[in-house]
Amino acid sequence: MLSLYIGNKNYSSWSMRAGVLLDAFAVPYTEHALAFDDFSADGAFKQNIGKVSAAGKVPVLVDGDITVWDSLAIAEYVAESFPDKALWPRDKAARAHARAISAEMHSGFNALRNACPMNIDADLAAIGQTLWQENAALRADVAYLESVWGKLLADGREYLFGEFCIADAFYAPVVTRLKSYALPVNELTLAYMARIQAHPAVDKWVQAALQEQTFVAVDEPYRQHR
Amino acid sequence: MLSLYIGNKNYSSWSMRAGVLLDAFAVPYTEHALAFDDFSADGAFKQNIGKVSAAGKVPVLVDGDITVWDSLAIAEYVAESFPDKALWPRDKAARAHARAISAEMHSGFNALRNACPMNIDADLAAIGQTLWQENAALRADVAYLESVWGKLLADGREYLFGEFCIADAFYAPVVTRLKSYALPVNELTLAYMARIQAHPAVDKWVQAALQEQTFVAVDEPYRQHR
Ligand SMILES: N[C@@H](CCC(=O)N[C@@H](CS)C(=O)NCC(=O)O)C(=O)O
Ligand SMILES: N[C@@H](CCC(=O)N[C@@H](CS)C(=O)NCC(=O)O)C(=O)O
Repeated sequence: MLSLYIGNKNYSSWSMRAGVLLDAFAVPYTEHALAFDDFSADGAFKQNIGKVSAAGKVPVLVDGDITVWDSLAIAEYVAESFPDKALWPRDKAARAHARAISAEMHSGFNALRNACPMNIDADLAAIGQTLWQENAALRADVAYLESVWGKLLADGREYLFGEFCIADAFYAPVVTRLKSYALPVNELTLAYMARIQAHPAVDKWVQAALQEQTFVAVDEPYRQHR
Repeated sequence: MLSLYIGNKNYSSWSMRAGVLLDAFAVPYTEHALAFDDFSADGAFKQNIGKVSAAGKVPVLVDGDITVWDSLAIAEYVAESFPDKALWPRDKAARAHARAISAEMHSGFNALRNACPMNIDADLAAIGQTLWQENAALRADVAYLESVWGKLLADGREYLFGEFCIADAFYAPVVTRLKSYALPVNELTLAYMARIQAHPAVDKWVQAALQEQTFVAVDEPYRQHR
């Protein structure tokens, strides 16, 4: 049985990718939730995750004596472990495309990531409006995002590559950000966001996030309490 | 025949990963070098790369009608295209480990990346010394890097997973940074750095970088000319 170590569902965008992916493909696993703190070396989070992974970050997947950290490496590991499930698209060109946009999300979109930390539970529309006016790099990230999604979704498909795949799981935390900060996006984007939010694996994660009561100060630049 | 679009060899760390990888595994390709400028939308770089990839960044790999951008997606694509060559380690646990450290490099090490942009040709030892004193996040990145490498190299192996693999190509631009900025590292790291620099694919890239005459102002926070 796989074990998945994650952070707070409300805040941990990297954890969300892995959790949503496993659920979307009905891969059985045991969940180990480690509450975020201030990430100091002697705090509970670092002490506990340190027992599992020297990288000291979530998510971490443990499969017997194999430990995989980093959400993208976890995705590749699960894809390889379940060749019967199409975690990546079966078509070679589509798979290359899906990997490109997933790896690109992994290493980029820094303006969106930094300005709009994931916070599923919060209504940050007012903050979002200010950010949108003031932050040109954020607007550029969202414009590029909409061009990437737009090209794929233009033919009326449900998910980025037809069936739900790793790329959709990787962009699920982006969908929650666009929603929390109410960033102005086009109709095609809104419709895709609605489909992602309605996906059972995403909905399960979001519902659990909403039920968490924890307030993590370092992840809440815009709020005082939850 | 594959086509690989790259930037200036002296500066483009993401391009280096792809170029070194293809050469290390003797994959034939045509190289298309696009000179860096200020990356303005109407400049030559963006205009030219825009004809190949909407992402507008290098490296880009073109294989017939398949276009793959992002160095990690390129690595996975080439690994899949040449199953007879062990671009990833053959052993499942080693492969998961190699993917974890490659994906981790892809999305992290921001302090090292930002403070020490790749610049193969430059001797930035004096800058490196100042950075080392002033930048705790840089010291933390290098300490973590040495722990990742150290665990793998402790048993005397030549490369991170024995044979040269994608992970070594992904860390090759880190080796050039440690060297250019003369950051203080331990013996094991120095020995690995020497082996990476001596690898024919890395040496080929470095020699070509040294022969470039172009000076890219935006990539040279510490120098006025080349
Ligand atoms: N590249 C990693 C990033 C993981 C990451 O940064 N996780 C955050 C939580 S969302 C974390 O554990 N942070 C703790 C820290 O930075 O010390 C991945 O994809 O898994
Ligand atoms: N995640 C991408 C990053 C590529 C990247 O940022 N490339 C730089 C050159 S090293 C670039 O093309 N920059 C142009 C720009 O940022 O506009 C990859 O791995 O290929």
